[in-house]
Amino acid sequence: MKINANYNNLEKSYLFITIAKKLNEYKEAHPEADIIKMGIGDVTRPLCPAVVNAMNRAVTEMGNAETFRGYGDEQGYSFLQDAIKGYYAGKGVELETDEIFVSDGAKSDLGNILDLISTENTVLVPDPVYPVYVDTNVMAGRKIAYMTGSEENGFLPMPGDAPEADIVYLCSPNNPTGAVYDKDQLKEWVDWANERDALILFDAAYEAFVGDENLPTSIYQIEGAKTCAIEVCSFSKTAGFTGTRCGYTVVPHALVRENTELNPMWRRRQTTKFNGVPYIVQRGAEAVFTEEGYAQTRADIAYYKENARIMAAALDEVGVTYFGGINSPYIWMKIPGGMTGWEFFDKLLEEANVVGTPGVGFGKAGEGYFRLTAFGNKERTIEAMERIKKLISLI
Amino acid sequence: MKINANYNNLEKSYLFITIAKKLNEYKEAHPEADIIKMGIGDVTRPLCPAVVNAMNRAVTEMGNAETFRGYGDEQGYSFLQDAIKGYYAGKGVELETDEIFVSDGAKSDLGNILDLISTENTVLVPDPVYPVYVDTNVMAGRKIAYMTGSEENGFLPMPGDAPEADIVYLCSPNNPTGAVYDKDQLKEWVDWANERDALILFDAAYEAFVGDENLPTSIYQIEGAKTCAIEVCSFSKTAGFTGTRCGYTVVPHALVRENTELNPMWRRRQTTKFNGVPYIVQRGAEAVFTEEGYAQTRADIAYYKENARIMAAALDEVGVTYFGGINSPYIWMKIPGGMTGWEFFDKLLEEANVVGTPGVGFGKAGEGYFRLTAFGNKERTIEAMERIKKLISLI
Repeated sequence: MKINANYNNLEKSYLFITIAKKLNEYKEAHPEADIIKMGIGDVTRPLCPAVVNAMNRAVTEMGNAETFRGYGDEQGYSFLQDAIKGYYAGKGVELETDEIFVSDGAKSDLGNILDLISTENTVLVPDPVYPVYVDTNVMAGRKIAYMTGSEENGFLPMPGDAPEADIVYLCSPNNPTGAVYDKDQLKEWVDWANERDALILFDAAYEAFVGDENLPTSIYQIEGAKTCAIEVCSFSKTAGFTGTRCGYTVVPHALVRENTELNPMWRRRQTTKFNGVPYIVQRGAEAVFTEEGYAQTRADIAYYKENARIMAAALDEVGVTYFGGINSPYIWMKIPGGMTGWEFFDKLLEEANVVGTPGVGFGKAGEGYFRLTAFGNKERTIEAMERIKKLISLI
Repeated sequence: MKINANYNNLEKSYLFITIAKKLNEYKEAHPEADIIKMGIGDVTRPLCPAVVNAMNRAVTEMGNAETFRGYGDEQGYSFLQDAIKGYYAGKGVELETDEIFVSDGAKSDLGNILDLISTENTVLVPDPVYPVYVDTNVMAGRKIAYMTGSEENGFLPMPGDAPEADIVYLCSPNNPTGAVYDKDQLKEWVDWANERDALILFDAAYEAFVGDENLPTSIYQIEGAKTCAIEVCSFSKTAGFTGTRCGYTVVPHALVRENTELNPMWRRRQTTKFNGVPYIVQRGAEAVFTEEGYAQTRADIAYYKENARIMAAALDEVGVTYFGGINSPYIWMKIPGGMTGWEFFDKLLEEANVVGTPGVGFGKAGEGYFRLTAFGNKERTIEAMERIKKLISLI
């Protein structure tokens, strides 16, 4: 038997596994250390009451023969698809119910959607960016081209600077930089894709953090996007579902390549290799779109955004340059003192007992930057920033 | 952009989608019909109290900041891995915790595990069998060879009759035929695989239905299996999790191909393209292995096996030949009167208002047979068999 030799081309370890390993080693050596985690972008606020109540009701239903549910449709229950459809309608985007596919999360979908795409394509990936865009394509042996996000372009690479490619990943608000494309910029990308029959994979996982009404929260707010873009989104950051697992992907019927509609291809992929999201979880996700659930989850987002404001103010005090943190839960700071990302990571862990993420973990162009997340507890965020200010003032 | 052209080679529709479509059309035309479903292998007993209580506790935990859980390890919480490990120990199989990967179900894993395997391999698939073995390989462009299950070999094809291949799928107890390999037969397969560095993908989804103590419920009960087999299992049929979604896959460290351990490859695949199973669901699955949960779920399996006994007795009455139904929830009956599978499907739906599955849906060699499931309600199963007896007595 032959293994998939492309796995040999992967970088040795997934970024967050490396961070977890370093953290565990430090903890073992210093069991007394009071460590504050601002590394992995994981939420800390509990599930909101509307979601908890909906899931408790669903668990009870599953325990009664009359209301028990077995297999659901792989693409999700229509009650949830329709709730998502309504959410998009509120953004001015009209979708068909069967253009929405409920899944166990954006990470799964971003990897699995590649099943539909020939390995002969070249993919264009921003640098820095969420590492799974690269790894999932390395695993399949696709050629990867990069486009650089930098201070000069506001960490928002544009088609004019980009090499030719068949598929492009856009992540807005961006992980890790917090940068957000405006409508004119996205229109350039949509035109670029439609002109050359390319495909945009639009990662909207952080859309709920956009507060500026002029900024797009879905690529389908841009004219022409339905003929060139797949949008992937998640309840992880919107409603604290990182440990509850639910997301969705939109594949418009108008998206046709080589005379083939991609929507039924994705349906076929999902009905063959996936069996749907737990009924209980889908009821929880549905509750996010009720009046009560929406208010509660947006209050949690406001809580995290207040953390981001506190973090930004602290960095201002010590004169550190940073990006993001306004329409995003991430602060992307310039590392002071000429240290590399992993040097600063170690120093921050050892001297301030704060865990962050080296920008270089998101790509070569991320070297010299560092990502801090606003997903923590407010008091701990304040404490962490005090420690960081103190550390930086000594560099 | 080029699409994955292998999708063009798929049969037009997934079997159970076709059945659902035919059923819906019939229902629309005959809204008054009292239809009994014995088609798709879906459970009907509610989740047992031990699981319901565990999930309710977990939902409450997720609603409190102190006990809230965000991202878990992609391969599952150790509390569940260790419970599974204990279950295997009870079968006389020693596993390491990190050889067990918790997932959202056997269907996902059976598809996704192919990511590790070169598309240049030839896979060997029994005919008839669970359709996703074929479809997932067609999607990747692998060459597929078949081995026929027939009355002559008890629907248990053996290496002696099989063409050369790199990977073989074994499903025991078999879906759809209900046939179960004995230890000597599995030993032949293990030797076959070890001799040629082939890989066995062992689907144990129905292992909990094996009542005969002499029959194996895990391939690792066979000497030498750890160097050649991956085992995929699920809570779907064991504990009624078809709508709750949890399964697991065992990749032993001893499994090495081309000087590469497959265990870390699968870990890398899962950490890159998957984000774990909901915490709430993992707590539910853990409860299946408590004394209370085990007794409750085994009582449900006994309930379904009593249905199978009733079904078998009814077919005996009208002199129909059948297989399975003893260590399996499926009855694999020979269609009387020379009808094809889909002809009998239509006749059964229209004249008896009973839905089953044409054997040909599981492969060419399934033509002339028909699958009935024992997963229904007892009273409805009795009623269905009365109708079937009546129908068959008129053929």
